[in-house]
Amino acid sequence: MCGIVGVISKAPVNQLIYDALLLLQHRGQDAAGIVTAVDRKFFMHKARGMVRDVFRTRNMRALPGSVGLGQVRYPTAGNAYSEEEAQPFYVNAPFGLVLVHNGNLTNAHALRQELFAIDRRHINTESDSEVLLNVLAHELERAARDLPLTEDEIFKAVSAVHRRIKGSYAVVCLIAGYGLLAFRDPNGIRPLCYGEMEIEGGKEVMVASESVALEGTGHRFVRDVAPGEALFIDLDGNVHARQCAEQASLHPCMFEFVYLARPDSVIDGISVYQARLNMGETLAQRVISTMPPSEIDVVIPIPESSRPSAMQLAQKIGKPYREGFVKNRYVGRTFIMPGQAVRKKSVRQKLNAIAQEFKGRNVLLVDDSIVRGTTSKEIVQMAREAGARKVYMASAAPPVRYPNVYGIDMPTKSELIAHNRSIEEIREFIGADALIYQDVAAMKRAVGALNPAIDGFEASCFDGCYITGDVSAEDFAAIATQRAAQGDEEDTQRSRLTLHNTSEQ
Amino acid sequence: MCGIVGVISKAPVNQLIYDALLLLQHRGQDAAGIVTAVDRKFFMHKARGMVRDVFRTRNMRALPGSVGLGQVRYPTAGNAYSEEEAQPFYVNAPFGLVLVHNGNLTNAHALRQELFAIDRRHINTESDSEVLLNVLAHELERAARDLPLTEDEIFKAVSAVHRRIKGSYAVVCLIAGYGLLAFRDPNGIRPLCYGEMEIEGGKEVMVASESVALEGTGHRFVRDVAPGEALFIDLDGNVHARQCAEQASLHPCMFEFVYLARPDSVIDGISVYQARLNMGETLAQRVISTMPPSEIDVVIPIPESSRPSAMQLAQKIGKPYREGFVKNRYVGRTFIMPGQAVRKKSVRQKLNAIAQEFKGRNVLLVDDSIVRGTTSKEIVQMAREAGARKVYMASAAPPVRYPNVYGIDMPTKSELIAHNRSIEEIREFIGADALIYQDVAAMKRAVGALNPAIDGFEASCFDGCYITGDVSAEDFAAIATQRAAQGDEEDTQRSRLTLHNTSEQ
Amino acid sequence: MCGIVGVISKAPVNQLIYDALLLLQHRGQDAAGIVTAVDRKFFMHKARGMVRDVFRTRNMRALPGSVGLGQVRYPTAGNAYSEEEAQPFYVNAPFGLVLVHNGNLTNAHALRQELFAIDRRHINTESDSEVLLNVLAHELERAARDLPLTEDEIFKAVSAVHRRIKGSYAVVCLIAGYGLLAFRDPNGIRPLCYGEMEIEGGKEVMVASESVALEGTGHRFVRDVAPGEALFIDLDGNVHARQCAEQASLHPCMFEFVYLARPDSVIDGISVYQARLNMGETLAQRVISTMPPSEIDVVIPIPESSRPSAMQLAQKIGKPYREGFVKNRYVGRTFIMPGQAVRKKSVRQKLNAIAQEFKGRNVLLVDDSIVRGTTSKEIVQMAREAGARKVYMASAAPPVRYPNVYGIDMPTKSELIAHNRSIEEIREFIGADALIYQDVAAMKRAVGALNPAIDGFEASCFDGCYITGDVSAEDFAAIATQRAAQGDEEDTQRSRLTLHNTSEQ
Amino acid sequence: MCGIVGVISKAPVNQLIYDALLLLQHRGQDAAGIVTAVDRKFFMHKARGMVRDVFRTRNMRALPGSVGLGQVRYPTAGNAYSEEEAQPFYVNAPFGLVLVHNGNLTNAHALRQELFAIDRRHINTESDSEVLLNVLAHELERAARDLPLTEDEIFKAVSAVHRRIKGSYAVVCLIAGYGLLAFRDPNGIRPLCYGEMEIEGGKEVMVASESVALEGTGHRFVRDVAPGEALFIDLDGNVHARQCAEQASLHPCMFEFVYLARPDSVIDGISVYQARLNMGETLAQRVISTMPPSEIDVVIPIPESSRPSAMQLAQKIGKPYREGFVKNRYVGRTFIMPGQAVRKKSVRQKLNAIAQEFKGRNVLLVDDSIVRGTTSKEIVQMAREAGARKVYMASAAPPVRYPNVYGIDMPTKSELIAHNRSIEEIREFIGADALIYQDVAAMKRAVGALNPAIDGFEASCFDGCYITGDVSAEDFAAIATQRAAQGDEEDTQRSRLTLHNTSEQ
Repeated sequence: MCGIVGVISKAPVNQLIYDALLLLQHRGQDAAGIVTAVDRKFFMHKARGMVRDVFRTRNMRALPGSVGLGQVRYPTAGNAYSEEEAQPFYVNAPFGLVLVHNGNLTNAHALRQELFAIDRRHINTESDSEVLLNVLAHELERAARDLPLTEDEIFKAVSAVHRRIKGSYAVVCLIAGYGLLAFRDPNGIRPLCYGEMEIEGGKEVMVASESVALEGTGHRFVRDVAPGEALFIDLDGNVHARQCAEQASLHPCMFEFVYLARPDSVIDGISVYQARLNMGETLAQRVISTMPPSEIDVVIPIPESSRPSAMQLAQKIGKPYREGFVKNRYVGRTFIMPGQAVRKKSVRQKLNAIAQEFKGRNVLLVDDSIVRGTTSKEIVQMAREAGARKVYMASAAPPVRYPNVYGIDMPTKSELIAHNRSIEEIREFIGADALIYQDVAAMKRAVGALNPAIDGFEASCFDGCYITGDVSAEDFAAIATQRAAQGDEEDTQRSRLTLHNTSEQ
Repeated sequence: MCGIVGVISKAPVNQLIYDALLLLQHRGQDAAGIVTAVDRKFFMHKARGMVRDVFRTRNMRALPGSVGLGQVRYPTAGNAYSEEEAQPFYVNAPFGLVLVHNGNLTNAHALRQELFAIDRRHINTESDSEVLLNVLAHELERAARDLPLTEDEIFKAVSAVHRRIKGSYAVVCLIAGYGLLAFRDPNGIRPLCYGEMEIEGGKEVMVASESVALEGTGHRFVRDVAPGEALFIDLDGNVHARQCAEQASLHPCMFEFVYLARPDSVIDGISVYQARLNMGETLAQRVISTMPPSEIDVVIPIPESSRPSAMQLAQKIGKPYREGFVKNRYVGRTFIMPGQAVRKKSVRQKLNAIAQEFKGRNVLLVDDSIVRGTTSKEIVQMAREAGARKVYMASAAPPVRYPNVYGIDMPTKSELIAHNRSIEEIREFIGADALIYQDVAAMKRAVGALNPAIDGFEASCFDGCYITGDVSAEDFAAIATQRAAQGDEEDTQRSRLTLHNTSEQ
Repeated sequence: MCGIVGVISKAPVNQLIYDALLLLQHRGQDAAGIVTAVDRKFFMHKARGMVRDVFRTRNMRALPGSVGLGQVRYPTAGNAYSEEEAQPFYVNAPFGLVLVHNGNLTNAHALRQELFAIDRRHINTESDSEVLLNVLAHELERAARDLPLTEDEIFKAVSAVHRRIKGSYAVVCLIAGYGLLAFRDPNGIRPLCYGEMEIEGGKEVMVASESVALEGTGHRFVRDVAPGEALFIDLDGNVHARQCAEQASLHPCMFEFVYLARPDSVIDGISVYQARLNMGETLAQRVISTMPPSEIDVVIPIPESSRPSAMQLAQKIGKPYREGFVKNRYVGRTFIMPGQAVRKKSVRQKLNAIAQEFKGRNVLLVDDSIVRGTTSKEIVQMAREAGARKVYMASAAPPVRYPNVYGIDMPTKSELIAHNRSIEEIREFIGADALIYQDVAAMKRAVGALNPAIDGFEASCFDGCYITGDVSAEDFAAIATQRAAQGDEEDTQRSRLTLHNTSEQ
Repeated sequence: MCGIVGVISKAPVNQLIYDALLLLQHRGQDAAGIVTAVDRKFFMHKARGMVRDVFRTRNMRALPGSVGLGQVRYPTAGNAYSEEEAQPFYVNAPFGLVLVHNGNLTNAHALRQELFAIDRRHINTESDSEVLLNVLAHELERAARDLPLTEDEIFKAVSAVHRRIKGSYAVVCLIAGYGLLAFRDPNGIRPLCYGEMEIEGGKEVMVASESVALEGTGHRFVRDVAPGEALFIDLDGNVHARQCAEQASLHPCMFEFVYLARPDSVIDGISVYQARLNMGETLAQRVISTMPPSEIDVVIPIPESSRPSAMQLAQKIGKPYREGFVKNRYVGRTFIMPGQAVRKKSVRQKLNAIAQEFKGRNVLLVDDSIVRGTTSKEIVQMAREAGARKVYMASAAPPVRYPNVYGIDMPTKSELIAHNRSIEEIREFIGADALIYQDVAAMKRAVGALNPAIDGFEASCFDGCYITGDVSAEDFAAIATQRAAQGDEEDTQRSRLTLHNTSEQ
């Protein structure tokens, strides 16, 4: 759950990458980084924080050059909150490579051992992206040994990478003096697309996680990168493409459509907005089959991402759609003062109910999904306090029952409210008068109908099917342990500044 | 157009004021400041930027004490962008006073001369709030000369202040060792209310610009401060109230209801949300009287504040309400690089159209108001590019024809698209197929109906009536000149760090 | 023990004041501040740290104007380490005043009560300089009530100040729109002098703590300010002088000559360098009367300020002067790491002995003074370890037996090695084979001979005579308590950022 | 002209390395960096500035581990002022290496081409130290291919490095998981020594540029590293030593003794202090042979490093030694203000003359060396203005006639006052009444006498003999061009933040 972007141009790219990262900021607010290049020389700035905070004028001035890449990070694997793991990552042999990665490797632990013992490569962080970069570096070195580096050697190396690594990955990598390499895992779990723009002196090519980054910066969307495919864009902007995976199939992550991506993006041929409208439509059917619409006075979305589903649902069941919750746009912190009790923060700091939309009504609240259930519980309570007679809750996504290993930030099994609980038990927990969930198959149909070329969806959180076929109970245990440890060690981790490639606040 | 808050408690108030300022952040993102007090000692931190950026842990730790006040600032008068003019302001004689102010004085220039020549008080900034504080300081000194300071002297001083100053002002002021003073201008132009909460050891009293700040921090809303009224809250939380103006009438600023205040606030007895619904309703009537609703396929709000009006309008005319624009939540900057042309930024960086909601349809766009017209023009263009067949525009507020002198950030007359232009000329300028404006009288009726106790509205931007009776053409010329100068000098002004009371980044 | 400077010019003064503060940096490294003025508007920057760290380009740019003042601070009274007490201090009524102060008031506590109860002035810090400024402000207000402000009123106010405050004080104060006021306490304890330079468009006048600041910035030294005298320099550079004290006598602080001032300064007509040579000469007589010079092989100064005395002593007794100790020029910190024992720091980190100058020799070490004795003890030990056969110690100052209340940073009585101890006991403590102290009367004669116009010296640390006549045992107890408290509270104090006049890092 | 240090311990080393760097700070004030390691994980902090400014508590906490190294940098080759070139440098393949380097490679340009074209290693800065590290990395990879890494492979790699690189280099390198490697160029131009200390749990071994760093941190000096020799200290503190150069000879840089090293250091068996005394002695003979000592009234050193020579000279010619110049300890900056002329800074801001030591006397000024001559000229002028009757100048070093290529910061040929000028011409330029220079051969004899084991001195600046035999006129031209370019580009360079291994302010 990160956003990545790469660009080959004839003009300075620092502002362009910055703008693209802003358009991808919803994919990660934890850290941001940009690398640009002049000839073979790289320039980097990265730090924890949001794009507008990380990049100041002096940082932007120190990012010259007409090729580059960038990333916004949402923490996923490892002690992922630390400064030193901000991307991009760099290695200087062979050639000089910088890389950004969206996704999560499921065999990072084993690869780490291999890299140390066999390849004698030093991995200095817990990041699986550093592992991925070193595997790629090693394979590039092997593919190009005693050969000039052409797209053939590069694609050969990507093929070898596909064989060695497991999991989800959309990658953009700059090879100093050569060009930009982009590739996507053989299941196409994480999105990646590219676009072009005519500029003075030639063509500008941009690769990005979502189409909004292309269009918002004036580029014409060309197409999605295919699963397993690699693109190599040379310094003149020529795009070389090759399928590098032995077996590829298109299984995009369902969560992109549920809440992750921007509604105005089109991913793998599917409008995210339309996908959400469709989910609202199938959800409406579930509502109708659960209760007479006449028992519902008003449909109220829980902002932001459930709006399209709720709107469509309201229209379908013929009930008014009203914005009964106001979201606090400005978020702050709770400071721990010595000898002072912490004021308990809650959903109420993020949402506020407008009483007249609830007073004396039967309200159907619509959320995009229900994960831990604690937020839903509090929202139901708020609706009641605002005067609602009955409070029904509908989730545009099916019950979240399994952990995610492909880069979506999810709690461990035991924290998932739907894990080992019946719908009735969940309803009782959140305190709603009724609880209606989306159906897994219906959702897949409703979204899949928008692009028949899609082979299926990575929807393991809902159906427990892990497409890479290498995930087992142990992985979940490891995740759980990692999380627990993280709590304790976070502060320590945070202070480990990087040796590798990092700037520091 | 600022947000202010003050609190008397028995427990530390730093986090509480911080939380309240976050809830008022929509009223000003330019600067933020907090003062707390322990006994007679004040502690201050203020700087330019948003609340979450201005206050770090080390700043919060340096704000001990159980009484305090805070402000978020939206620049209005003077060279208002400078650091040194961040509030609160402080003077040390008499007593030690810190003050926050929302509003704008219309006779600040004359007062400044008086203070220098007669009162021998040094005003070190261009801020009218520093002027206001010094007038108050002088009147407190005069009222309490040779007398113990009680609420009688304090209220006497406020009466004198009302006589000397003109314009809009909601004020909270801390008197070292005595308590919190809050007052509102005799026309009640800018809002101010207070609330209470029982806490361990007694009562906590909070004064704030909007009711959301009270409720969002757990306080029970008690009432609005009346126009011309002053409250003095002593250190035990006893609230003393007195009408200090000779002539008071309630004329709240219409812009609070149009777009400034949060929809979930209630100001002077009127739910802002309901006011917007009502404006949508009367606007619907104007639409219907302009064109047959059958010519409209869909109603699309221009986010954020026009949503309630648009929703109500859509319902009224029986057409679907659809969210056809996605707002970019993350805003960044355009960096000026040496020797590099600036990429032109536009509305497109803030909004993105979702094509399927426009394609082949006649769309009615609803905005809260139209000021310069340039944004509307671009949005109409975007709608057309997204495939709309016809693009109609409706404004929930009437034409903005006159400048604002009471603290709303408005351009000068010549920049107002509705100044000296007919509706048809405006429609042509923005390029819409039809343009429907709210009617001034209808708007006043629709909003006024929600609280009969209101004497009228400060709606000078729409009707040209300046309630304080002291505003003339010269004032507007001065405003225009000031603005022009500001452009040139902004950078210089910004670098003038304050001597007075400021911290600095 | 601070350094102050003020200047009236026709050209920008920021760099000039910066340069002057660097030349006075030896008088205080704890904090630094500058105020400049354009017309009546003040600009301030101050912070903790040394001059070169406090002032960056952006701070300097924010200090426009051709009049101004500055200070470098060495902590003396109160919880003096805090940020908020960095000078200059500001009050806005009457007129607008900023002030810098070198010295220490002995009746600050009583004045503080008066200011609160009678003058209703708010004092927000523990600094006696803020007290001094408010007394001056009050007296200026009283002197000029209903009168135009001329030098007569100003000098009248200074006279009133002299009557109200006790202790040591050299003061420079800027009166907004009027000019620069400088005055010195009636005993002339702390130094103050002024100089001039012809510049384009007129004359530049500078007031400073030491003559090096004048000469190092190209000014011609004019004269010392007389004890009790006030200078008022108007904005055209005209210097008005008046004796404002009823009884004035010249008793400069002996410590300026012992180690505080720069050797190349001339204070009250006495070359500091020559004073130190003279002290070396009289010390030589004490040495000769104590032991045959033949028992001494070499004279070794303890750097830096004892060099002239040691050199002269060596010449007088006919023995070689050798630099046997190397001073570590670069000082750092001891970081407290969690769970890590602190490496004990000592004199050895500041000094290193060059073995060949000690090996097998009888060495006479010369220091400027001995305060706690712990450093001397360690140095004697180092000399022995470096191979010295005999180690004699001579102090260019007499035994320090009493606390200081006039602004010299001295430990409390009980920490002074010479308090209640005989010379023999001290010798035993520091472990020297002989210990020779300067004689009080001889020192006064030796230094006093350089300017017969001097009435005497403030030498209370040596002779226990407090010239202001108001210092008692209780004061010392208060000092001791304050110190003890300071240790505990230092961190808290440090974090109390100022409301008043401070900038923050 | 850098200072380096490395340590293998059983306890945390962050404070220890920090303390050692402070003791070496005189060797470089431009930048500082530390790397520590826990197991195979490296932690780095580096930045421009002095040690005490670069390392804050939070940085120190982020440097855990019981092995590490550090550097203080004085800019030498390349655009050496940039942030990105702060040391240590890091490469991650093979093994993970971090390196610090004191010296200058004379064939860096050719090596850079080789590394790119043949070794495919990316060099991202202009630093010759990054080149050196990559050569070492490449040779380690080659030596250890398919073999376990033992000291044999390591020493084999160092031998290969000696064959490939030319110039001066003292190097400390940490191999992740293995230990600390230290080596010195085959001519021993730059110093390197090591020491030990018994600590709890074993032995602590430290390698450093100068013996003061060892002794000042409590270590027993063991010996200098021999020219061409490599030490490998494993993680248990065992020191493995081997001569890795085919031809080694000891030719330490004469400038270490002239002014670079601390007087209390012993380098290659020679006390720096004693070397300076000896230079004073031979200089005295030159003085005597030039003029009758009776024409000299007083000998005055130009602080700091000429003191021992001047003192010995004074004693030798039987004239008093007096400290006639006071050095300004606190240095600041000249800020360039918009539209403001720069006040010309000069030697007078660094030095101040004490008039009474000059007035009416014939003074012999002693400096350690004369490079450009401009400073000497100004000092002579100051002496005259202070009242000197005659001003003679003596230089403890011979005329500096040739550029330096081994890491001493020297101007280009044309800027050297002694280049192509006779002594009489120089005397005339600096305006002295007489000018006495040290003799090259006498200096070598005087210093060399202190350790007969020394084969000679690298004294190319004086005698034009470049010991590495590969330096030609082109190199000087390149240096000159580089310098010139640097002036223009400095600002740009400065802002290029590093991708490689840098932290940023």
